[in-house]
Amino acid sequence: MPKIAYVNGRYEPLAAAEVNIEDRGYQFADGVYEVCVVIDGRYWDEEGHLARLRRSLGELQIASPMSDAALRNVMRQILRRNRLTSALVYIQVTRGVAPRNHPFPERVTRPSIVVTAKRIDIEKNNRLAKKGLAVISAPDIRWARADIKSVSLLPNILARQAAAKANASEAWLVRDGMITEGSASNAWIVTEAGEIVTHPLTNAILGGITRSTVLKCAEELQMKVVERAFSLDEARKAREAFLTSATNFVMPIVSLDGGKVGDGKPGPVAARLREAYMDHCGAG
Amino acid sequence: MPKIAYVNGRYEPLAAAEVNIEDRGYQFADGVYEVCVVIDGRYWDEEGHLARLRRSLGELQIASPMSDAALRNVMRQILRRNRLTSALVYIQVTRGVAPRNHPFPERVTRPSIVVTAKRIDIEKNNRLAKKGLAVISAPDIRWARADIKSVSLLPNILARQAAAKANASEAWLVRDGMITEGSASNAWIVTEAGEIVTHPLTNAILGGITRSTVLKCAEELQMKVVERAFSLDEARKAREAFLTSATNFVMPIVSLDGGKVGDGKPGPVAARLREAYMDHCGAG
Repeated sequence: MPKIAYVNGRYEPLAAAEVNIEDRGYQFADGVYEVCVVIDGRYWDEEGHLARLRRSLGELQIASPMSDAALRNVMRQILRRNRLTSALVYIQVTRGVAPRNHPFPERVTRPSIVVTAKRIDIEKNNRLAKKGLAVISAPDIRWARADIKSVSLLPNILARQAAAKANASEAWLVRDGMITEGSASNAWIVTEAGEIVTHPLTNAILGGITRSTVLKCAEELQMKVVERAFSLDEARKAREAFLTSATNFVMPIVSLDGGKVGDGKPGPVAARLREAYMDHCGAG
Repeated sequence: MPKIAYVNGRYEPLAAAEVNIEDRGYQFADGVYEVCVVIDGRYWDEEGHLARLRRSLGELQIASPMSDAALRNVMRQILRRNRLTSALVYIQVTRGVAPRNHPFPERVTRPSIVVTAKRIDIEKNNRLAKKGLAVISAPDIRWARADIKSVSLLPNILARQAAAKANASEAWLVRDGMITEGSASNAWIVTEAGEIVTHPLTNAILGGITRSTVLKCAEELQMKVVERAFSLDEARKAREAFLTSATNFVMPIVSLDGGKVGDGKPGPVAARLREAYMDHCGAG
């Protein structure tokens, strides 16, 4: 069965799903996106993702392509039409098509919207979480508005490619000696002193929906999390490290730049938070 | 007559010219571009633009979609098919289509290439040069590799939109108090002391092809240009200011953030360099 994509009002085979070459997403990276996870037919943190999409669009002054109700409907249709119950759903919205010119088009354009879905293998992800991931550090050379979930992702893919070349799964980005976040995930450590730390919400990081839910889970578990920047050096000496993202939930990190994190095995804090997060989303 | 675009081997009406939604240019801004000017059927600085395209592709490890000879042929066909002799020609190359995943695709993709052309009105541009442009300053919030001519242009369009809202034509970007360049042009001033200054070639600016040719013209005219960063304050007090770009050649700037530059009229250095540049490219 061919994969089906939703593009500007139509469901069509992915191979034939196209946008105009003057779509501002293609020429200027003038667009935003979300990646949501669906497990057993249920969207996790759906409202959080929709709220962030609205925020990203607002920051770029791109109109909403449709109501939230209509988008929720597309998000269900795309699952049905691809016969998926557990999936990653990708939503991209751009400013639309206009003759190439840097400023926003004078005539308001109809935003473009694309929605796709692909199978997620949660058992595989659970096995991965038992082993933990390797990460590398890389300079954070991104623009100053990483808080906007835009498709302007060139520095992110270059960092991820550097990680892949080093047989690592993610790159932790370092600005002025401090780790901001990963190329597509938020970064957390448990320090030598046992403090759970993650970067605070500033323009330097994306406000992860999973990050936010994990913070709530930690609170419920009466685990104290300190939101402050931490250094690469702290990460190297950390007892534990882990990342959070919609696609990897809470994922332990067992090596950083080739050196062991802690004892080189997934740590108890990451395990507890992963379990709490999965319970929270899976049960709610 | 409908506009014709070249897309991955085919000439088709612009309105129907499309790329797949999983083109990495659309999902990750994973691509580069060039804008060339053609006057009376002749490409200006063609070799410079082709060389820079090769460099941009090399920096991102994207393969060339075709030989230079084949590309030069497309660049001529696009003019013929659009019945244009004076035009702006836009060339975009991306890493191609692959299932969405941050690192470079494991299976090497065929790069995507798009070429379009639109009429340029050189008389209108000449009239503009007699009046001069207004610019504003804006924070340079771009990534650290502005030297790569990538389509990761979101900060650029936001700066240009801010300029447009202020009835200005360009935004001069300021990092640590120093002007790096414009959102789509290089920035030049003639200081109070009469020094002609433009930012040196670093990762913080795009190495403009026009910038480079204008430097040669200045040398031929025995006008000394100092390549160093200059401050916003220096620009405010400058005798003259101007920008260089493929589409605007050498263009005087007569106001900055609403204040007059010099006496608020195009200056003699800009005029001389514009003339020399037009002669150089038009005659060669």
